[in-house]
Amino acid sequence: MEYKVEKLRVNYKTLEEFKRFKEYGLQELSMVEDLEANIIDNDSESPFYGIYFGDTLVARMSLYRVEAKFNRYFEPPHDFLELWKLEVLPDYQNKGYGKALVNFAKEMGLPIKTNARMKSRGFWDKMGFTSVHYEMARDRGENPLFWFPEGFPIEKD
Amino acid sequence: MEYKVEKLRVNYKTLEEFKRFKEYGLQELSMVEDLEANIIDNDSESPFYGIYFGDTLVARMSLYRVEAKFNRYFEPPHDFLELWKLEVLPDYQNKGYGKALVNFAKEMGLPIKTNARMKSRGFWDKMGFTSVHYEMARDRGENPLFWFPEGFPIEKD
Repeated sequence: MEYKVEKLRVNYKTLEEFKRFKEYGLQELSMVEDLEANIIDNDSESPFYGIYFGDTLVARMSLYRVEAKFNRYFEPPHDFLELWKLEVLPDYQNKGYGKALVNFAKEMGLPIKTNARMKSRGFWDKMGFTSVHYEMARDRGENPLFWFPEGFPIEKD
Repeated sequence: MEYKVEKLRVNYKTLEEFKRFKEYGLQELSMVEDLEANIIDNDSESPFYGIYFGDTLVARMSLYRVEAKFNRYFEPPHDFLELWKLEVLPDYQNKGYGKALVNFAKEMGLPIKTNARMKSRGFWDKMGFTSVHYEMARDRGENPLFWFPEGFPIEKD
């Protein structure tokens, strides 16, 4: 089944829907504040992408393009996407929504980094993500996993 | 009640005990690899601190001192401690073990940063941690909270 992945807009409806996701946090709270303070417009573009089932946002992820000069993970330095808050609402899990979101990110043609919970490692393995060697000064509490587009010219860490 | 906080050693016994904690991840796996490859000695010092109940490790945290030059959170730049993987085994929760570990970190006299789950915000509030303003380029999927020693001369972000 094909799902339609949409770039989400910052508005009160979206922010209300975000509250249903477990990983609601400072990022979402700061979006609410910015909207209330008119620092961003209603319907600004957000870093979130999501999939609707009818009118309900059932899956989402946040994506951010990290510039090569901030790349501390592989050589030669290259822009990559950081992917976080990939989450599917409980009633909609195991139906391919998470996979559809990750595939959408892959189509951007850049390496993708995520910080995986160990219990989700099976999912990331299936999606072709592999771990880098852990370095405490860089990674602290993270479990960094990467996916690379085919033929991507890097020396993996 | 007073608990004795100990700096943990990297050895097979400690690493076996770590497996009982939910946040077991790449950091612990890399410690196992380093031990097996003799890159570190049995009984090297680890970045983990813990509390034993009898022979059982029942609570732990990881601490790392971040140098001022890498401080992207407050002005003027100053060294701070990053604290992660604070965790108490289920049967030992709500007995003050977590608080004892955080207080141990506080006694080092440096600001402390942690990345909190929203459901643990109540605990961090009680421990005097406050959030910084979320910045996507810096914080990505994190919810950064800080504690500052009394009289610490900073302009908070």
